[in-house]
Amino acid sequence: MINTEMNKVPKSNESKDIIDRKIEHLKIPLEYDVQHTENYFNDIKLIHHAIPDVDFENIDLSISFFNKKVSAPICISAITGGHPVSKEINEILAKAAEEENIIMSVGSQRAGIEDPALIDSFKITREVAPNIPIIGNIGIGQVSALNFELDDFGKCIEMINADVMAIHLNALHELVQDKGDISYKLFRNNFEKLREKYKKTPIIAKEVGTGFNQDSALILDKLGVDGFDVGGAGGTSFSAIESKRNNFDNQKYTRDPAEVFREWGVPTPVSVIYVRKVTQKLLIATGGLRTGIDIAKCIALGADIGGFAYKFLQSAWNDRKTNSIFNTVKEIRTLKNELRSCLWLMNIDNMDKLKGNRNKYVILGDLYRWLNQ
Amino acid sequence: MINTEMNKVPKSNESKDIIDRKIEHLKIPLEYDVQHTENYFNDIKLIHHAIPDVDFENIDLSISFFNKKVSAPICISAITGGHPVSKEINEILAKAAEEENIIMSVGSQRAGIEDPALIDSFKITREVAPNIPIIGNIGIGQVSALNFELDDFGKCIEMINADVMAIHLNALHELVQDKGDISYKLFRNNFEKLREKYKKTPIIAKEVGTGFNQDSALILDKLGVDGFDVGGAGGTSFSAIESKRNNFDNQKYTRDPAEVFREWGVPTPVSVIYVRKVTQKLLIATGGLRTGIDIAKCIALGADIGGFAYKFLQSAWNDRKTNSIFNTVKEIRTLKNELRSCLWLMNIDNMDKLKGNRNKYVILGDLYRWLNQ
Amino acid sequence: MINTEMNKVPKSNESKDIIDRKIEHLKIPLEYDVQHTENYFNDIKLIHHAIPDVDFENIDLSISFFNKKVSAPICISAITGGHPVSKEINEILAKAAEEENIIMSVGSQRAGIEDPALIDSFKITREVAPNIPIIGNIGIGQVSALNFELDDFGKCIEMINADVMAIHLNALHELVQDKGDISYKLFRNNFEKLREKYKKTPIIAKEVGTGFNQDSALILDKLGVDGFDVGGAGGTSFSAIESKRNNFDNQKYTRDPAEVFREWGVPTPVSVIYVRKVTQKLLIATGGLRTGIDIAKCIALGADIGGFAYKFLQSAWNDRKTNSIFNTVKEIRTLKNELRSCLWLMNIDNMDKLKGNRNKYVILGDLYRWLNQ
Amino acid sequence: MINTEMNKVPKSNESKDIIDRKIEHLKIPLEYDVQHTENYFNDIKLIHHAIPDVDFENIDLSISFFNKKVSAPICISAITGGHPVSKEINEILAKAAEEENIIMSVGSQRAGIEDPALIDSFKITREVAPNIPIIGNIGIGQVSALNFELDDFGKCIEMINADVMAIHLNALHELVQDKGDISYKLFRNNFEKLREKYKKTPIIAKEVGTGFNQDSALILDKLGVDGFDVGGAGGTSFSAIESKRNNFDNQKYTRDPAEVFREWGVPTPVSVIYVRKVTQKLLIATGGLRTGIDIAKCIALGADIGGFAYKFLQSAWNDRKTNSIFNTVKEIRTLKNELRSCLWLMNIDNMDKLKGNRNKYVILGDLYRWLNQ
Repeated sequence: MINTEMNKVPKSNESKDIIDRKIEHLKIPLEYDVQHTENYFNDIKLIHHAIPDVDFENIDLSISFFNKKVSAPICISAITGGHPVSKEINEILAKAAEEENIIMSVGSQRAGIEDPALIDSFKITREVAPNIPIIGNIGIGQVSALNFELDDFGKCIEMINADVMAIHLNALHELVQDKGDISYKLFRNNFEKLREKYKKTPIIAKEVGTGFNQDSALILDKLGVDGFDVGGAGGTSFSAIESKRNNFDNQKYTRDPAEVFREWGVPTPVSVIYVRKVTQKLLIATGGLRTGIDIAKCIALGADIGGFAYKFLQSAWNDRKTNSIFNTVKEIRTLKNELRSCLWLMNIDNMDKLKGNRNKYVILGDLYRWLNQ
Repeated sequence: MINTEMNKVPKSNESKDIIDRKIEHLKIPLEYDVQHTENYFNDIKLIHHAIPDVDFENIDLSISFFNKKVSAPICISAITGGHPVSKEINEILAKAAEEENIIMSVGSQRAGIEDPALIDSFKITREVAPNIPIIGNIGIGQVSALNFELDDFGKCIEMINADVMAIHLNALHELVQDKGDISYKLFRNNFEKLREKYKKTPIIAKEVGTGFNQDSALILDKLGVDGFDVGGAGGTSFSAIESKRNNFDNQKYTRDPAEVFREWGVPTPVSVIYVRKVTQKLLIATGGLRTGIDIAKCIALGADIGGFAYKFLQSAWNDRKTNSIFNTVKEIRTLKNELRSCLWLMNIDNMDKLKGNRNKYVILGDLYRWLNQ
Repeated sequence: MINTEMNKVPKSNESKDIIDRKIEHLKIPLEYDVQHTENYFNDIKLIHHAIPDVDFENIDLSISFFNKKVSAPICISAITGGHPVSKEINEILAKAAEEENIIMSVGSQRAGIEDPALIDSFKITREVAPNIPIIGNIGIGQVSALNFELDDFGKCIEMINADVMAIHLNALHELVQDKGDISYKLFRNNFEKLREKYKKTPIIAKEVGTGFNQDSALILDKLGVDGFDVGGAGGTSFSAIESKRNNFDNQKYTRDPAEVFREWGVPTPVSVIYVRKVTQKLLIATGGLRTGIDIAKCIALGADIGGFAYKFLQSAWNDRKTNSIFNTVKEIRTLKNELRSCLWLMNIDNMDKLKGNRNKYVILGDLYRWLNQ
Repeated sequence: MINTEMNKVPKSNESKDIIDRKIEHLKIPLEYDVQHTENYFNDIKLIHHAIPDVDFENIDLSISFFNKKVSAPICISAITGGHPVSKEINEILAKAAEEENIIMSVGSQRAGIEDPALIDSFKITREVAPNIPIIGNIGIGQVSALNFELDDFGKCIEMINADVMAIHLNALHELVQDKGDISYKLFRNNFEKLREKYKKTPIIAKEVGTGFNQDSALILDKLGVDGFDVGGAGGTSFSAIESKRNNFDNQKYTRDPAEVFREWGVPTPVSVIYVRKVTQKLLIATGGLRTGIDIAKCIALGADIGGFAYKFLQSAWNDRKTNSIFNTVKEIRTLKNELRSCLWLMNIDNMDKLKGNRNKYVILGDLYRWLNQ
C-alpha cells in the first residue's frame, strides 16, 4: 500500500504551495541542523536509587489517555499530512503506533479540508490503526479565520475518527513564513463556539516549538481546553526551518526574521513547569526530547506524556525506503525500554509515582536560574 | 547632493587633527573588531506568549519624544559630523530617519563651533529632515572648559534646529586618547548655567560605551537633565578604537591604556536598570544592541528607546557608495519589524505595556549575579 | 608464582562467558576512555593553611577499619577475580596492600562459588596478605536469587578469610548487560537472613559507579549494613564499558542503552553527603578519585576512606609485565604522600580532624547547586 | 655597576645548590608557563562613574607605609637575592623603586646569612635606594629552625637597613622541593622571641602563592605581626616552577607532587577578604595581579597595596641586557597610570576612598560562590 513515488502531486492546483511546503518541512530537518542550540534537559539530573526492587518487566508504563489506555506515555507528535508522501509517512507511523499501542498525532488537517483529494493522507492513519488514540490537528490560524466554519472542525474529527483534537498554536512559525496566518483576534470567540458544539471531543492546545508561558496557559485553561502539548523550545525550530527555505526577501529586510527569531521560545522543561502551575489537566511535553530519559525528566517535572516528532520523522523516512515499519517500531520500543529503565533505576513501578515527584531530580545551571526568579 | 570624494578636507588647518580622527572613528569599527567581548543581552530571555491575539499590523510602536511623536522607539545614535564624509553620512541618516520618522542624533558639534566651514556637515541633517526630532551633541569636555561660552550651546541648537541636546560623557575615551579633555571640574557649574539659559531645550546626558552607575545618574538627575542615553558597555568600545589608532606611546608605558581599559564599563542592561532605579525620566538604551529583540529587552528592563550607532554606520557607509538611502531605510524597517514581532509574540500592543514589565523576561547567568548583590 | 599466560582458561565451560567478560572488564578501561565526562571533584576547593606547624612525618593517616588498624584511609577497590589473569592481578594487589597495610577488596566472588577451579584467583589474596583487612564481594543479583544459598555467603568469607563482606549493588551495570541479573525483590528478605546468620562479619553495601541516594542509604541502614562504599558517578562507567563490548543488539533498539545511560548516577561527592546525612556508619568514597587530594576532599565531606580501582588496575597491569609489585606499591605511597601533604597544608594531624570538617573546603559550580536545593 | 656575566658564582661551595636554584627560579617563569590556570580577577568588575570631576593629575595615589610615605600603593615583591645575577636584578629594581618612590622587597636573605660573600646581592638595594621603604625577607623555615639565632634576624635588617621585615610562609613550595624545610613547630615560639627582641622593626607575614585562610591570619594577628602580604593563588605557582625543575623522583612516586599541587591555594581576592575579616592591619595583595586595574580591585576588596613579582622580573631581566632601569621605571609608571585611571574613572581622588568600598565593585562567577558560603 505504501507508495514510494514523491512526485505524484494531487490535481488541485490552488493547494500546490502548501503541498510543496509540506515536503520541505519534512526534508529540511533531515538534511540541515535546524535544532535549537540550547537544550536544558542536561540541566536536569534524575536521581539514581541503588536498590531497585521493583520488577523491571512488570513496571507499568501504561497511562490512561482520555477514554483509552495506552501502553506508554509516548506520543508521536504531529508530523505531516496533505501530500502523497505524507500519506506514506502517516501510514508507517500509525501502523507502528497501533502495533505498540501508543498515541499518534497527524499534521495539520487544513490541506484535507481545503482539498478533499488530500484527505486520504490523514484518513490512512485510522484505517491502519483502528484502536489507538489518534489526535487530529487544526491550526490557530484556521480557527481564528473570519470564514472559519465550525463544521470544518467536525470534518477533521470525522476524517480520522479523532479521539482528541489538537489546536496547534504556531504564532512564530506563521510570523516568519511568507504570508503566514497571524490574525488570531477571533480565536477565543471561535474556540468557545467549537467547545460548545463539539462537547464530546477533548481539545488540547499544542505549541510547536516556542512553548507556553503561564499567561497563555491560564487563558487556555479558562477557555476550557482539556489539555496541553507544551511544544517548547529545545528541539526543531520551525523558525530555523523557514530560514533554510530561502524565502527571505532581502530587498525588504537586512536580516531574515526566521534567523533572528531562531532561538525564541520558552524551553520545554520551563514550559512544563509553567503549565503545571496553572492546571492539573493533561500535559504532553514535546520539544527537544531525544530519549526515554527525557520522557522521565519531563514527567518528573509534572508532565503526563512525552512527545517526539524529529525522532519519528527519521524512523519513518527510513522505513519508507524499505516499505516497512521496522525502524519506527524499534524507536518506540527503544523509548519504552529507556523509560522503563529510568523508572527501574529510580525504583518506581508506575507513571503516577514519577509524575511531579520532586525527590527524583535536581536542577542545575541556567535552568535553575530560569525557574527561580 | 552626496559627495563621494573623501579627500576634500576643509581649509582650516587648526582642526585638521580632529577631522582626521573623525574619519578614523568611522572606518575603524567597519574594518576591525572593536566590539566589547562580553554582551549580556543573551542573558535576558523574553517570554513568549502562545496566543498573540493583538493585531500585528496595528501594534503601536510609536512613542512621544518630548514634543514630537515618532513611529518607533528607535534612535540613530550620534555617529559623526565635522568632515565632508560626515556630511554625506549625516545626510543619508537624516533622510532615512525622516522617511521612517525616527529619532536622529548628530556627532559632536565641537568641530562646527570651532570651524564654521564644517557647520554644513551637521546642518544638512535638518535640511533634509525638517520634521523628525534631531538630537544635537556637545561633549562634557567642552562644557567643562574654562573658556566655555554659553553661546556655543546656542549655536549647536541653532545649527540643526535641535529638538534636544545631548551632552556626551566620554571620560574613558578622552582618557585613552592623546591629549584628551579630562578636566570636568567646572561641569556641574557650567551645566547649571546652561540649564538656566536654555530652558526650552531638553538636555540629555549621554554615555558613549561605559554606561552610568547609580551615583552618576543621581548627580545628573539632580542637576536637571531631562533624560539619559545610557551608552553602556557591550557594543563598540571607543577604547578599542583608540588602541587601533596606533597612537600609543610605547616609550612611556609598557601597555596601551586603550587596550587595558578595552572592556571597562557598566554593561548596557545593568546601566538601564541602574538609571531606572534613580529616575523615571526619558531613557535611551544604547550600547551593543543588534536587533529589534534587543530593543524589546531594553524596554522590558525599563528603557524608553533603543539606540544604534554601529548598525547605521554600516548601512550609511554602504548607501554612500550608491548615493542612496536604501540600506539605511531597510535597517530601520528591519528593526521595526523585529520589535513589532517581539511585541506580537508577547501579546502586547504598545510600548507602554512592555516598558519595565517584569513578567516579560527572565535574567540568567552573570547578568543575574550583577543585578542581585 | 605469577603466571603471565592469559589464555589458560579453566576447564569448566559453563562459566566461560563470565570469564571472558572478566578479562574484557579489565582491558577496556585500560584501552578506551570509559570514564564519566563529569567529575565534580574540581568544584571542591580545600582551604590552605599558611602555617602548618604539625609535624609532616608524624601526621597520623591511620584509621581503624572494624577490628584492624590500617596505615591510611585507602582502599584498593574491588577489581577482579575468577580468571588466571585475575589471580595474578589479585596477587599483586594483595602483596602491595600487605606491604603498605591498606585495605584490599576482591572482585565478585560469584565465579568462585560457581566453579571451585576459580577459587584460587581469590584465595591468593589472603595467602599473600595474611594481616590486612580484605573485603569479600558478592552481588545483589546473587543475594536476590531464588536459589540463593546462605552458605554461599559463608563460602565467600571462608575463601579469603574475609574481614568484611561487601554486597555490590550494580543495578545499572546489570541492566545494560545482556542477560543481567535485575530481579532484586528477594534482596531485603535474603539480606536479613544473611545478617542474622553471619553476625560476626561486617557487611557493607557497595555501589559501583552510580552512587547512593538518601532513600537507598536509609533502606540499607535500617536493614543493618555496617557501612557503605558509595561508588558514585565520576570515574569508570560500567555502562560505558558495556557500550564498548559491542554486545548491543541493534536489531532490537535504535540506541545502545549502555551508551544512553553512560552518565547516569549520583556523583561521588553528592553521594558521600547523601549517605552521611542518613548515617554515621563507615563510609568509603569510591568513584572518580584520582589523587590523594581527592581522598582528602571526600573525607572533608564526611567519608572515612577513599577507594580506587582504575589507578590500581593500571599499576597492577604494569606490574604483571615485570612480575613485581613495584608500581602498585608506588601508587599507594604516592596516594599516602599526597594525602599527608593535604593534611599538612591544612595543618591537621589526623584523619578525625579532617572528617566532615566544614571549615576546610568550599563548594563551587554545579556541585553547589546540586547540594543546595 | 651592573654585571652581565651570569657565571660568576661565589667561591663558597656549600651554598652552591641554593644559588643554582635561585637562577632557575628567575629563568623558569620567564621561559615557561608556570602561572595558575585560574585567575579570579576577571570575576571582579569595578563600577564606572560617568562624571569623573576629580582632577586626574591631582589624584593622590600616595599612602603611608609605616614611617614613610610612598608615591603609590605599589610594591615590588620579593624576587631574588644571593647570586651575582640577583645582585644585578636587585640593583635595577631598587634604583627604579627609588626613582619612583615605591616599596621594594628583597628575596630570601638566607643566602646572605649563610654566606657573607652573597650579602652584597641584597645590600646593593639600600646602596642605590637610600630613601624608599625596603622590605627584608626571611623564611618560616629559618625562623622555625632548631639552630635559629635571633641575631640572624638582626643581620637581615642591618644588611639592607630594612624598614620592615617579611617572614615568608612558603609551606607548599618547601613541601614540593627536594629536602625542603617543612618543620615549623618552633615557629610560634621563635617568632615571639623575635617580636620581643626587634620591637622597632615592623614584621609582616608573607604568603608566596597559596594565600592565607582566616585561621592562619588570626594566628599571625595574635602573634603580633604588623601586616600581611597575602601572596594568594592566581599568579606564579612555585609548585609549577618546581615541576619544571625536573627534580621529581619517579622511582618514588607515580605523580610529581609539584604537578599535583600546582593549583593549590586560596585565590588572592579570597585571601584579601579573609584577612580583612580578621584584622585591620596593613595588607599587601600579591598573586596574579597584572595591571593597575588589579591593584584597584584588590584595594576595593580591602587591601592597602598591590604587589608584583612576575611583571618586575620581566622588566628587570630586560633592563639587565641594556644596563639600564628603563623598562622597570616604565612598568611602575604604567601601573601608576592604570591605577590613577581607575580612580579617576570611579571619581575617587585618594586611596582611602577606594579601600574596602563595597559600592565600587560587583563580584560574579565562582568568586561570588567562594565568598558566599
